[in-house]
Amino acid sequence: MENLGFENVKITSGFWKERQDINRGATQQSVWDRFKETGRVDAFKCLYKKGDGNPPHYFWDSDVAKWIEGASYNMILYGDRKDEEKIEEIIDDIEKNADENGYFNSYFLTVEPEGRFTDRNKHELYCAGHLMEAAIAYKRATGRDRFLKLMEKYADYIRRVFVQEGSAAFLTPGHEEIELALVKMYRETGKKKYLDLAAFFVDKRGSDDPKEDFGDLKENIQCHQRPVDQREAKGHAVRAAYLYCAMADLARITGDGKLKTACLALFDDIVNKKMFITGGVGSNSRGESYAYPYYLPNVNAYSETCAAIGTAMFAGRMQELEADSRYADAVERIIYNGALSGVSLDGGSFFYENPLEIIPQRAALKNMHYPITQRVKVFGCSCCPPNVLRFIASLGGLVYTLDGDRIYLQQFAESEAVIPRESGKITLRQITDYPLSGKVTLICDADADIEVRVPGWSEAYSDDKKPDGYMTVRLKKGEKKELDFEMKPVFYECDPRCGEDLGKVALARGPVVYCLEGLDNGGDLDGVFADVKSEITVTKEVLSLPILECGGVRAERSQTLYRKAQKLAGERIRLRFIPYHAFANRKETPMKVWVNRT
Amino acid sequence: MENLGFENVKITSGFWKERQDINRGATQQSVWDRFKETGRVDAFKCLYKKGDGNPPHYFWDSDVAKWIEGASYNMILYGDRKDEEKIEEIIDDIEKNADENGYFNSYFLTVEPEGRFTDRNKHELYCAGHLMEAAIAYKRATGRDRFLKLMEKYADYIRRVFVQEGSAAFLTPGHEEIELALVKMYRETGKKKYLDLAAFFVDKRGSDDPKEDFGDLKENIQCHQRPVDQREAKGHAVRAAYLYCAMADLARITGDGKLKTACLALFDDIVNKKMFITGGVGSNSRGESYAYPYYLPNVNAYSETCAAIGTAMFAGRMQELEADSRYADAVERIIYNGALSGVSLDGGSFFYENPLEIIPQRAALKNMHYPITQRVKVFGCSCCPPNVLRFIASLGGLVYTLDGDRIYLQQFAESEAVIPRESGKITLRQITDYPLSGKVTLICDADADIEVRVPGWSEAYSDDKKPDGYMTVRLKKGEKKELDFEMKPVFYECDPRCGEDLGKVALARGPVVYCLEGLDNGGDLDGVFADVKSEITVTKEVLSLPILECGGVRAERSQTLYRKAQKLAGERIRLRFIPYHAFANRKETPMKVWVNRT
Repeated sequence: MENLGFENVKITSGFWKERQDINRGATQQSVWDRFKETGRVDAFKCLYKKGDGNPPHYFWDSDVAKWIEGASYNMILYGDRKDEEKIEEIIDDIEKNADENGYFNSYFLTVEPEGRFTDRNKHELYCAGHLMEAAIAYKRATGRDRFLKLMEKYADYIRRVFVQEGSAAFLTPGHEEIELALVKMYRETGKKKYLDLAAFFVDKRGSDDPKEDFGDLKENIQCHQRPVDQREAKGHAVRAAYLYCAMADLARITGDGKLKTACLALFDDIVNKKMFITGGVGSNSRGESYAYPYYLPNVNAYSETCAAIGTAMFAGRMQELEADSRYADAVERIIYNGALSGVSLDGGSFFYENPLEIIPQRAALKNMHYPITQRVKVFGCSCCPPNVLRFIASLGGLVYTLDGDRIYLQQFAESEAVIPRESGKITLRQITDYPLSGKVTLICDADADIEVRVPGWSEAYSDDKKPDGYMTVRLKKGEKKELDFEMKPVFYECDPRCGEDLGKVALARGPVVYCLEGLDNGGDLDGVFADVKSEITVTKEVLSLPILECGGVRAERSQTLYRKAQKLAGERIRLRFIPYHAFANRKETPMKVWVNRT
Repeated sequence: MENLGFENVKITSGFWKERQDINRGATQQSVWDRFKETGRVDAFKCLYKKGDGNPPHYFWDSDVAKWIEGASYNMILYGDRKDEEKIEEIIDDIEKNADENGYFNSYFLTVEPEGRFTDRNKHELYCAGHLMEAAIAYKRATGRDRFLKLMEKYADYIRRVFVQEGSAAFLTPGHEEIELALVKMYRETGKKKYLDLAAFFVDKRGSDDPKEDFGDLKENIQCHQRPVDQREAKGHAVRAAYLYCAMADLARITGDGKLKTACLALFDDIVNKKMFITGGVGSNSRGESYAYPYYLPNVNAYSETCAAIGTAMFAGRMQELEADSRYADAVERIIYNGALSGVSLDGGSFFYENPLEIIPQRAALKNMHYPITQRVKVFGCSCCPPNVLRFIASLGGLVYTLDGDRIYLQQFAESEAVIPRESGKITLRQITDYPLSGKVTLICDADADIEVRVPGWSEAYSDDKKPDGYMTVRLKKGEKKELDFEMKPVFYECDPRCGEDLGKVALARGPVVYCLEGLDNGGDLDGVFADVKSEITVTKEVLSLPILECGGVRAERSQTLYRKAQKLAGERIRLRFIPYHAFANRKETPMKVWVNRT
């Protein structure tokens, strides 16, 4: 089973087309401008000399690499060469400044030349991995392989240092990424040495080699155990996600059943115990990491944008590993909520953290780490913005999975896909305004059976749904088949072990989770209860998005700080909810996803 | 109006007698042992030389001083000379090592002799204040004034340096305490210069003298504004309380109406917006400080023991400033809960912080400051243990307030008080098992009208209660008058602006706030709801204390992390509550005061 590449899935209009247009316009430009301004782009010229100001940071290459990857995907999507010159100039820089042996890293070539491959925690292989992903994307966009050849040479050098010579001071990277990049290198070049190198970095991780000892930080970088033995998502959530992606890739490609078992357990642990309703993960700001099960705080959710994206990438790979709609359900939860909230509606600014509640006064307390309350254009550690760029551009790659002649429809979007079935290529169209409604019409230029995911939130088609969560839709050539997943607003509650959300509800409509903002609800959200039995109405738009209203109560304030418990009394109000991903697009205001219930 | 000194109020049996016995036994010994072990006591010998290990800390003198104060109070209470030799030896040390001019500070005499009166934030005047309080207590206990004379000399020197010469590098102390101590010095010696010096330190605070500029820390030490202009409780909660005590003292003694206005506003701000239901204050661990109104978090409540004690001291002084039962209500809330929780039931170990919820797994997250979950014998900063010692010993001083012939009965305890009314001394007995029941019998050896506080929690005597919250009880000589405040368990809720407690209830019985511990409730408190309509029963004892039970539900766990909101379903259970002050006396276990309600 393999996901159909986004090159084959043209999203033609609707929700994601709009996001992709903004992504290719404002986001691509905004990220470029900031990376240019901050010196990230020019760092590739390797002109930094000791004593100069603004030295390159050891993760800068990865930022620019992700931008190249995203810009390349956009070239493919839009069939043009936008920003090609910028990329060519960066490739010139790499070509000019790379070592004879292929090594390239703008930090270690200038700031700390003596430090090459000595410090596991300095993101060297992480940067290399992102450059490889960028090179592959650029080759696909332009057909030119100059960049890819450079990266092949670099990968060969890494292989020599880490596998053949064992001369690096560490054995596996402190920040995973190169593993999944090497799998891509293998798929792009067909050269098995890259797959083997990916497997090496996964297999050796957490082994008893003394180079794997990372003290107290072991768990944070997932080397507390060999990956094949891991069953619980632990440590830095982005690093974890990238590792799990490589594990899923390897499990599929090599057929390694033990690795698959680990992937299944890790996925279960994430979605059943550690994922916010928004799809965000990594609830511990300390170490940007997974916490213990059911620790899902709201104000300090952390929930990094990159962790959401990485987890969607993992879930996307899991849907290649076996037919189970839970994977695409997870992808859907993430892409409409905790990943999309990472970028402003205008595409120009970003969140690194995606809280589920904002109480503006809290930040001044400084008694814990609080997220910022408004998106910004760039971060010191600016991994998230270009990750948004490449992820939204390549989103079409999560829409279909192909298994010989069997086609799984995973995500819904107005689109046209060319699907190279084993028995012949077909063109499948989705006509839908999803997620505005749950209606999806399918039409195909040939007879075809499609395994359509019945979304986890939908109660429709319960008779047709198979144990794997899909239903088979038999299309006749040219015939329209209308489906309706009956999208309506629903209040959700959490497992009672999530202490912070007990007695509260979250409102969602289909895959879109909603939230309250103070701005729409009288300024503050103090004492607000949602009436779960009230009628929820879809009302006029704010910020070009549908908003929901339900009944509620604003509890009467007290004369004294404490009073005898009474039946809930107060003003009956209408609560106005906006989609979570659209929060914080106007001005600073209180926000909450989980609302006390009547 | 003046509180009757605890010397005149003999608590004869019951709840507080038991606590006072333990306080004089285990607590006095435990604190002494730890202070001896850690070098605090021997620091008074001033033998430390640069390069030696374990240098005195600049707040150590205050720790020992509070122990002396407490031990002295216990001599008075128990009519003996227990630990007198220990104290005499310390006084010998002070006498021997004090400067010619009276200056004594074991840190600045040895570790940093060049730093005397140069650093506002090094607790120099704070230590001096506590030594003065100790000296006064010791004189009262023994009749000997050697210590007091030493402290008079020291106070005179401080006056010369700060007022007459202005030669100190700062104008007012970074940690308040000396102000209230100087008022006591005035009251003990009758020398007005000490009252004036107290007024100097209060008046100059926050003035535009450049020495008052403390940058960002201004608010933390209450010099952001002149005290007379302050209306909101801000900054370090212990420092604030000690300042407010001095302000109330000065307002009463000098009749300064503006200072009284400030005190009233500050008290209102605390009890109406910033006090936990346990009487704890100071909810921001950063700076151990007050936060914005209604920020009353549970797990990270902070709520330092000393801040509770200091606030009871402030409320006790407010009850001398005007007749309003709110002050004694606040005292009562504090002494039965957030202050008493600072010491273990056996008297030997202590909490610095008093959380309203414990989730044991949280500490390992290290994403914010978490309180310890079990009491310890000593802290690095060990202000709280000796504060408990002196506070419990002197608790009798909060029981009555005398205004000429008018007697206010503020707190209920089995006791005998000799009350020097203007028109003649009387002996008043309270016969009561309070707080086990709300029944109090009064008996007096003369005809007397007593203004008895009707506790804020009581619904009895609503017709007799006057606007000031008291009711007049007319006693005939020798006649027993039985009162019953009808103590029963009540669920309370918070003002809806306390976001963290919304939808939750706390259980109290009279003044005693209760909590759930996992130990009594199946191990953990996950998904627990209290049924506020269920019958609450007082059942058999645990830890020698009455426990309460009510009906509740343990919400059914979910198959998936999120599910459609449903009517609360789960196992019907009995919830067992223990008094809050008794939490964490067995072993580490989850605890919560605020419980979700059905």
